[in-house]
Amino acid sequence: MSSPIGDTSRPARLAEPGEGFGADELALATRNHGLPLEALRYDVTPPGLHYVLTHYDIPYVNGDAPWALAIDGAVQRQLSLGMDDLRAFPAVTARVTMECAGNGRARLDPRPVSQPWLVEAVGTADWTGVPLRLLLAEAGVDDSAVDVVFTGADHGVERGVEQDYQRALPLGVAAGDAPEVLVAYAMNGAALPPQHGYPLRLVVPGWYGMAHVKWLRDITVTGTPFTGFQQTTAYRLRQRPEEDGEPVERIAPRALMIPPGFPDFMSRERVIRPGQVTLEGRAWSGRAPVVSVEVTTDDGRTWHEADLGEETAHRWAWRAWRFAWTAKPGTHVLSARATDAEGSTQPLSQPWNRGGFANNMVQRIAVHSLDGEQADE
Amino acid sequence: MSSPIGDTSRPARLAEPGEGFGADELALATRNHGLPLEALRYDVTPPGLHYVLTHYDIPYVNGDAPWALAIDGAVQRQLSLGMDDLRAFPAVTARVTMECAGNGRARLDPRPVSQPWLVEAVGTADWTGVPLRLLLAEAGVDDSAVDVVFTGADHGVERGVEQDYQRALPLGVAAGDAPEVLVAYAMNGAALPPQHGYPLRLVVPGWYGMAHVKWLRDITVTGTPFTGFQQTTAYRLRQRPEEDGEPVERIAPRALMIPPGFPDFMSRERVIRPGQVTLEGRAWSGRAPVVSVEVTTDDGRTWHEADLGEETAHRWAWRAWRFAWTAKPGTHVLSARATDAEGSTQPLSQPWNRGGFANNMVQRIAVHSLDGEQADE
Repeated sequence: MSSPIGDTSRPARLAEPGEGFGADELALATRNHGLPLEALRYDVTPPGLHYVLTHYDIPYVNGDAPWALAIDGAVQRQLSLGMDDLRAFPAVTARVTMECAGNGRARLDPRPVSQPWLVEAVGTADWTGVPLRLLLAEAGVDDSAVDVVFTGADHGVERGVEQDYQRALPLGVAAGDAPEVLVAYAMNGAALPPQHGYPLRLVVPGWYGMAHVKWLRDITVTGTPFTGFQQTTAYRLRQRPEEDGEPVERIAPRALMIPPGFPDFMSRERVIRPGQVTLEGRAWSGRAPVVSVEVTTDDGRTWHEADLGEETAHRWAWRAWRFAWTAKPGTHVLSARATDAEGSTQPLSQPWNRGGFANNMVQRIAVHSLDGEQADE
Repeated sequence: MSSPIGDTSRPARLAEPGEGFGADELALATRNHGLPLEALRYDVTPPGLHYVLTHYDIPYVNGDAPWALAIDGAVQRQLSLGMDDLRAFPAVTARVTMECAGNGRARLDPRPVSQPWLVEAVGTADWTGVPLRLLLAEAGVDDSAVDVVFTGADHGVERGVEQDYQRALPLGVAAGDAPEVLVAYAMNGAALPPQHGYPLRLVVPGWYGMAHVKWLRDITVTGTPFTGFQQTTAYRLRQRPEEDGEPVERIAPRALMIPPGFPDFMSRERVIRPGQVTLEGRAWSGRAPVVSVEVTTDDGRTWHEADLGEETAHRWAWRAWRFAWTAKPGTHVLSARATDAEGSTQPLSQPWNRGGFANNMVQRIAVHSLDGEQADE
């Protein structure tokens, strides 16, 4: 492509061996943000601590102007629904753990150059909205329908392709009830914040974040599979650029630990005092319920079963876990790994692909256990 | 220092020429976050978009447990004030633009290795709380008093020094009314979010962010100048490590522009259509009111006066500005620069110091104006 836009919108690439993070990766990291891991303490992530990834700009939506959601394509009745129309449908609230498909990308070798997440692109919220299946039933889906395409109001360029952000779900998922997909207008009991899709977003429990289309303005039922950029170019698991690749869909199991003790400002390494330390965190999987979390305090030589928190009615939310540890003086490397009811567990070495997607390699936390010493000058 | 803590808590350093951003800088950038620049549209920054910098961990404060603020040291009456005690004092709400002292650090050459902000470490909020001068009057400050030291509940290590975060203000500033320092318990009409200091923080209008101590638990009046780490080691303007340096205090003037058009996902460069484009943004100074904003669309060859938004009663908040531009096809570099009533203006080349503090070099935005073309494959 010889378009001038190609000068600023370049192909995807891998970092060279030893290449530091670039100004482009940093520009994404300063805009988007992860969950500070100490916020794993909260069942529901407080506003502003939930991870955020925006492909383009956050659209400016004036709250006084009407917003209409179109439902069209292979349907019997085209609909245009205002916010009051949507609120007239039955409302459902679901507690959902959402994770970016690129979480962990920055730890891969070679590193795909994109939003450079370490492990923190996650959060849990109570989302309230209308089940999508009710809206599709209202519109009357044609027998010919294959996919349901969701279009957001965010507009940009990516690898030379100018686009509104668009993703599709197979009709069976969109109209299903396990998970029940929501068109959500509230987060934690309040209107959506701008960065989480005000006034409307899709919520697809169990799926990675790219499926949860924000600033949702159009739902189009199609009779052929959707082949848009975010469906067939981005968000595919590929070893080589020319492969079609597998689609990125449900969240792989992961456990994260609240880093114990206190941090060094710059290295983010941890300091604790020797003795009893409770290690705790959260675990989740979008594929099947988490059935086990194991903990190592010796960098993977031995693993111990952690106590899982009580099972709750929140199938799509993370589960608490804890493990009592007696820390001896010295340096320790801590990890936790989750296993779900389908038997999937987290790998110790990287599950590599060119996009850096669906990577659930275990977290490693270096902890220095210092004998009673107060460090100062 | 031969402490084992020294292995993880190292001295400050400058990046080597051409050195990419490190995993340590990235770990800070994924936790802390800036204002996505399109959010400059809002007079008051919506929750979750205001910049956040936390030196250590966000302390976990259980909302059901009582919180007490101690006021002690060189006072006639030591006080221990609960939240209800504080709410019994007259409440003041101030709209304040807050900026991190390290804003712009990542663009410096050589680059100080620390939190790598580009230009986005800013936000504006309505803070509600008790004027500090009323609390100091209640305690009765001794004639010997020099400084007022503020201690937060956040604990960590920095360059080998284990510490609770502490900063001081000279008594004259702490007890003054221009600016009026607040002990704030609300942000934009709601309780403080955890990352902004729940349940209490200091707000020092016009000063860089390091002065606004979060998770405030102790106010100590001292008869000698405070020499803690954050006062005399960090947050000083130094050319060489051995200098005492000048303290970092009030915010230097800065204008930022909402990047026009739409972005490329990875490069964050901008695309617009040729024709009429309204350039707009915000400008502020903690030293004196902003009296002028100039705009260039040719990378600094010519500058044009922008229209300033109406002056408001919010002396300590940013001021809107706008400029009508006719964009021709091609690539343009846009900047804005603010000047305040003391005659301070923004430099075009870097005001360098070893900490990368108080840097207000002008922002540069590369914009590609493409003639009617829709870029796609």
